[in-house]
Amino acid sequence: MKLTTSFGPNPAVVTLFIAAKGLTVPTETIDIIAGENRQPGYLAKNPFGGTPLLELDDGTCLSESIAICEYLEELHPSPPLIGATAEARAVTRMWVRRIDLGYVQPMVAGFRGAEGLRLFENRMRCIPEGAATLKAMAGDGLAMIDRQLATSPFICGPQLTLADLLLQAFLDFGATVGQPLDPGLTHIATWRAQL
Amino acid sequence: MKLTTSFGPNPAVVTLFIAAKGLTVPTETIDIIAGENRQPGYLAKNPFGGTPLLELDDGTCLSESIAICEYLEELHPSPPLIGATAEARAVTRMWVRRIDLGYVQPMVAGFRGAEGLRLFENRMRCIPEGAATLKAMAGDGLAMIDRQLATSPFICGPQLTLADLLLQAFLDFGATVGQPLDPGLTHIATWRAQL
Repeated sequence: MKLTTSFGPNPAVVTLFIAAKGLTVPTETIDIIAGENRQPGYLAKNPFGGTPLLELDDGTCLSESIAICEYLEELHPSPPLIGATAEARAVTRMWVRRIDLGYVQPMVAGFRGAEGLRLFENRMRCIPEGAATLKAMAGDGLAMIDRQLATSPFICGPQLTLADLLLQAFLDFGATVGQPLDPGLTHIATWRAQL
Repeated sequence: MKLTTSFGPNPAVVTLFIAAKGLTVPTETIDIIAGENRQPGYLAKNPFGGTPLLELDDGTCLSESIAICEYLEELHPSPPLIGATAEARAVTRMWVRRIDLGYVQPMVAGFRGAEGLRLFENRMRCIPEGAATLKAMAGDGLAMIDRQLATSPFICGPQLTLADLLLQAFLDFGATVGQPLDPGLTHIATWRAQL
């Protein structure tokens, strides 16, 4: 097994997950600004060019950070970061999706359409005309998450899960690209200070 | 266990999944146009008001169609629609995510910002100024999926998986809201005719 990673929030989700599991995974860090992930050798493994990428010993190449975390959880169930039961896993997957669609995706699309436009416009289709609305959507998503954290120490209850790590990685990224956390979201601030 | 469902593509994903599993799940269909999913009783079970919703016998309420399908697969592993091995499940989850982020989400957001605007603008933040770009993104996503189906009878190889059902449900929806399949995407057309 080999993980190819880089800076950026999606790789950070997997890195946080591996650290919280206490695992050691052979890792290569590539330079995505220099375009190492756009070279033919890398594109043969992940045609979409994204990081991270987990290569299995049988040659299977897994991309998509959440799918990689699910795979690592299956191989190393303890400590559970998705869940120890089918019901707990379902709740974690529900919240991962709410955080992803409610906050992560609009935040990232808002960045790519505004501060990140020059970096991304030649790599993928961006939405500059919608960037302000996308950022506002991301704010709505964070307000929803703040309400959840008003009732619970972690996103899914008393235990840290992948949902918390996903949120942490993208809050860290958001703060560096002009979308810092609204200090009025005090439950998220408390949760973050405790992580 | 009880499934609360309605018309719409997300409920259709779960309905297709249950049918492909050969399961029978007690189901109630509610009228979302009349706002049955915005009543206090329903919102107590799913604060986001979406359908479908799976209520477990212990009172746990699961929303998010992909999380519901994952839960049903854990309870009823055969026939496998996510995968019989950790590696197969990882590949299915990777493709579910690529289809979701590459096609489903931009297609739906494009619809909500254009043809669906009057229906959705009082329910959630929409992106009318970005609708044309979002639809073009969805087209890029379908072209990516068409390239995958050029190499494989189903999205993840020789077997039907949740990735196929997700695509089917949203292609059906897209065709009804002004985003029909581009007939030039012949591999998708062939796959669809065989389903």
